[in-house]
Amino acid sequence: MPIIEFRPSGKTVQVLPLTELADAARLAGIQIESPCGGKGTCGKCIVRVVSGEVDSDSLGMLPHAAVAEGYVLTCKTRILESDVTIEVPEQASLEGGQFVPEDESHLIRQELLPRQWQYDPLAVKWRLNVAPPKPEEGLSDLDRLSRAIQHDWGRMQVEYSLLGIRKVADALRATNGLVTATLVRDSGRLHVINIESGDTTLRHYAIAIDVGTTTIAIQLINLAVAQIVAARSDYNDQLSCGLDVISRINYSRRPDRLDELRRRVLGTINRLIHQVAKSHGVDPHEISNAAVSGNTVMTHLLLGLNPEYLRLAPYTPTLLQVPYLRDSEIGIDINPQAWIHFSPCVGSYVGGDITAGILCTDLATETEEINLFIDIGTNGEIVVGNNSFLMACACSAGPAFEGGGIECGMRAATGAIEKVWVDPAKGTTRYSTIGNARPRGICGSGMIDLVARLFLTGWIDAAGKFERSRPCPSIRIEGRRASYVIAPAEESASGKPIVITETDLDNIIRTKASIYSACALMLNQLGLSFGDLSHVYVAGGFGRFLDLENATVIGLIPDLPRGKFHYLGNSSLMGSYMVVVSQEFRQRQLQLAQRMTYLELNTDPSYMEQYTAALFLPHTDPDRFPSVHRLKLKGKA
Amino acid sequence: MPIIEFRPSGKTVQVLPLTELADAARLAGIQIESPCGGKGTCGKCIVRVVSGEVDSDSLGMLPHAAVAEGYVLTCKTRILESDVTIEVPEQASLEGGQFVPEDESHLIRQELLPRQWQYDPLAVKWRLNVAPPKPEEGLSDLDRLSRAIQHDWGRMQVEYSLLGIRKVADALRATNGLVTATLVRDSGRLHVINIESGDTTLRHYAIAIDVGTTTIAIQLINLAVAQIVAARSDYNDQLSCGLDVISRINYSRRPDRLDELRRRVLGTINRLIHQVAKSHGVDPHEISNAAVSGNTVMTHLLLGLNPEYLRLAPYTPTLLQVPYLRDSEIGIDINPQAWIHFSPCVGSYVGGDITAGILCTDLATETEEINLFIDIGTNGEIVVGNNSFLMACACSAGPAFEGGGIECGMRAATGAIEKVWVDPAKGTTRYSTIGNARPRGICGSGMIDLVARLFLTGWIDAAGKFERSRPCPSIRIEGRRASYVIAPAEESASGKPIVITETDLDNIIRTKASIYSACALMLNQLGLSFGDLSHVYVAGGFGRFLDLENATVIGLIPDLPRGKFHYLGNSSLMGSYMVVVSQEFRQRQLQLAQRMTYLELNTDPSYMEQYTAALFLPHTDPDRFPSVHRLKLKGKA
Repeated sequence: MPIIEFRPSGKTVQVLPLTELADAARLAGIQIESPCGGKGTCGKCIVRVVSGEVDSDSLGMLPHAAVAEGYVLTCKTRILESDVTIEVPEQASLEGGQFVPEDESHLIRQELLPRQWQYDPLAVKWRLNVAPPKPEEGLSDLDRLSRAIQHDWGRMQVEYSLLGIRKVADALRATNGLVTATLVRDSGRLHVINIESGDTTLRHYAIAIDVGTTTIAIQLINLAVAQIVAARSDYNDQLSCGLDVISRINYSRRPDRLDELRRRVLGTINRLIHQVAKSHGVDPHEISNAAVSGNTVMTHLLLGLNPEYLRLAPYTPTLLQVPYLRDSEIGIDINPQAWIHFSPCVGSYVGGDITAGILCTDLATETEEINLFIDIGTNGEIVVGNNSFLMACACSAGPAFEGGGIECGMRAATGAIEKVWVDPAKGTTRYSTIGNARPRGICGSGMIDLVARLFLTGWIDAAGKFERSRPCPSIRIEGRRASYVIAPAEESASGKPIVITETDLDNIIRTKASIYSACALMLNQLGLSFGDLSHVYVAGGFGRFLDLENATVIGLIPDLPRGKFHYLGNSSLMGSYMVVVSQEFRQRQLQLAQRMTYLELNTDPSYMEQYTAALFLPHTDPDRFPSVHRLKLKGKA
Repeated sequence: MPIIEFRPSGKTVQVLPLTELADAARLAGIQIESPCGGKGTCGKCIVRVVSGEVDSDSLGMLPHAAVAEGYVLTCKTRILESDVTIEVPEQASLEGGQFVPEDESHLIRQELLPRQWQYDPLAVKWRLNVAPPKPEEGLSDLDRLSRAIQHDWGRMQVEYSLLGIRKVADALRATNGLVTATLVRDSGRLHVINIESGDTTLRHYAIAIDVGTTTIAIQLINLAVAQIVAARSDYNDQLSCGLDVISRINYSRRPDRLDELRRRVLGTINRLIHQVAKSHGVDPHEISNAAVSGNTVMTHLLLGLNPEYLRLAPYTPTLLQVPYLRDSEIGIDINPQAWIHFSPCVGSYVGGDITAGILCTDLATETEEINLFIDIGTNGEIVVGNNSFLMACACSAGPAFEGGGIECGMRAATGAIEKVWVDPAKGTTRYSTIGNARPRGICGSGMIDLVARLFLTGWIDAAGKFERSRPCPSIRIEGRRASYVIAPAEESASGKPIVITETDLDNIIRTKASIYSACALMLNQLGLSFGDLSHVYVAGGFGRFLDLENATVIGLIPDLPRGKFHYLGNSSLMGSYMVVVSQEFRQRQLQLAQRMTYLELNTDPSYMEQYTAALFLPHTDPDRFPSVHRLKLKGKA
């Protein structure tokens, strides 16, 4: 069997002839991005064949000159009989997990969060004094334990798992019958999902998980006080299998790849859990409650469900509302007997991240005022409504604001440029980074600041092209390519400059156009206008700060009085927190999901028109953004 | 690390210094019997060290001469630094699984078996026509499936497992919505434990399992017609870890050994299931119902529950009634989502084999007549009662009648001598074997025939000693040892004679004494006598034939009119059949278990007296067996 060596890592793997080079790389543990999901269209999985023969279809997708130098696409290349040496170009930085230094609950209006009397997780810890065995009663350990539980909880049916039963005898004897049972209440039944000797009621943890297409974020919650102990996020390990949900669906079409995607997302989740648990002295098996929120495709992939039918008419998912499943079936590294709650999905393109997210808004209250919720992720989702209607729609925004597809883009993690100021005269920048670290890249909030301020100061025009007539030390023009240096090489962590290119600007403009036009179209279809809105909630993984004024400047969000805007941060994660600490909130979420109607925008004939009109900063129609034009005049002054 | 070689098999294993030789043998896959559970008392695990140094405590347990020749006990010997070669003596034949050629349901009175209208297994197969998806309904596959189920079954809550959910999308699409669901009904809920495309209602199987200390027996049942398709039995793989339950409990005291015992019994069960399933073209995953009956220790060991507390005062088991557990937790190789029923145990020494067994008797009916049930296994259990009381007791009978501890003993399998006739004058035998095969050993029914007829014809005396004064070609006297050749070397399958020794006779007499005295004592404590009994049911793995007259001759069962006796065969297995095909029978079994009271015989001061008095053929008190004495006079004539 031919041996494949990958440089510079030196990793090798032996594979059968005709193995796809992309598979060989994966087997060798080499991370190669495949944003298009292996269709050969994105060109991101390019490598160079240093020696050995391969069979490649890369010509036509790569320039002649590149092919002549040995460059191939891993997804379009097969190994033949000979050994091969492959050079892997340095990847765009997929940096490792970083602390999010604080929880984001302060971004949510306090009256929307569960109050102390509403703290009521699905699994509770209960201290029991189990009577010692009396031979004349002829009771087993399980009988005595069930009686003690029924003494406190009434004559409910008590159910057990075998793993739990195995611990009962020793637990009862270790502390003379003083044990703590972890109980799940399920209409008329009590499921004992853990038994520990002694009183462990103060060690009771939950995990909230936001499963994004690009980023996965978790919170560790101490249920004894319903407090967020730690939060952490990282890129979804599925990222190397496609940048968006459609690419992932393409990727999953081979059964082993469906399982690979499942293991990848599970791997990211479990790595994050181990990191937060370890750093806070918590054994993952002390986590007995979990809520997971993800879009419909991510929910399917995490459960190992074939997502194929989500993109084939009539777009029927296997499930929308996931029944409670034991974790042992799913494989998250917590108490394997825990029952996992999944935030309900509404349709193929409105998922659990949205039904979790709207819990952070007035859309979850009884108000008659009309509110808008915009969740900006790899997919953009928009919900509008009040106490009598709830409409949702989705648009394909792309991962730009999470750092995806942007040359120096990164998510909001340590070293990310999160705020940018532009000198109007010189066109140079000042910036600040998360954690005040040396800059490693730019995150969504930094991009919005940068684009807005370069636009207001005239260093880029409404089409997202750099000013070529005035000299600027930060702008580099190379033929038709132009880029802007935010941080020069000597300041950055990697020793390479942190730049934004015109291609990046294009990506950002397309993303914002997609979201704005979807909002506009949806309101239009409902006979509403932006002026009818009382509040606009913006969610997304932008980090701690999102300058909503700058978001208006670039035309991402409508031009409304600033007091109407609320930035929520990762609302899918905060909504997961709410449903995992409170069953009342879980009920509320189910009701909201049932009330929500999905609106298909793609079938609207005016969609392309609206979208194209929004492909400018802030928009082709200046009347839609009057305050931006006033600001621009000031900026130029 | 030293390398240990075992001869004659040539198997080798590398182990750490100070590894116990018994563990090294197990690691090498060498079966060495350890009837005492590794306490060094039975001497059965003897091997010879051919070369290399070991550290052995065998002296004092083995004769000096044997130790000088290199013989050691594997349980009392540790490996040192050097390589070692071990010679393993030929083992008593633990022969492989054999067909039991027919089911034993004909041994049960037909009116006690479930009738057709009572066929009602816990998991049923249900054919469904699921409506195709309509985009405007916004229903998921699971929603549509649940609606179809609720259409037929009413608005019960429908629950799923993840493994099942993964199959739904493809199953629904493969046959345009025609699917077969396997449903478990559970007060107000329906659990979908399998989904198959098409109509598979005729392929619906169950498995009944009797988990004995010595023998494991299973039946494959076609639920479409409630018929026993095949039956099979084999020795419990735990046998090499101890012959009786107390030895197994001793063996299990190290945690890895508790898991070893669990894997061993599971291994035997799964091997038998694969054999019967394969030979009948059934995929084990088509088996969706299972009932397991075993004594309390076996039930604990199969579930991986520490049995230690069963033998420590106050003798509290972890559980008596096993809650329904998903098979995925247990590991039997059938549909992993199946719910496994365990026959309920009554106490540490009256288990599920008994609550299954009495379903085969009038004790399960409303009769006022008093009936006795005797289950002769490695433990003997006795139940007496009628519609107003049910008392049970247990005695340690030993595995003699299943072939354990008897030089040429074997269970009732192909080649077992099952019937024996003795020529009164010459003292020689004729015999017949199961399957008319060349004899491989003697099973319980053959032993009872042999001992009874040798006794009636005077070739053994009431103490179980061979006649030494008259010459007999079958009796061999070697000093104080005497044995009797049933089949000479040239007739037997192995080329070695099949014999019974005086030590074997001793074992058989102790077994029968234990059972008889327990029956007598129990009736005595209840103020009853044998004459008060309407029926006596005898169960055990004796094979197709048990000559109840001969059983009376040796004093195993009381001397009563022959019409009162009923031989049931393996009643634990037949009872398992009943509860797996009929929920009504399962309910009946639970009620019987709740009504049953356990009587502790060991605390009765007259127990040893009664037992000692029964250590003769048939008994020291001739008045108890008047008909035997009449027969004996005829036999001598």
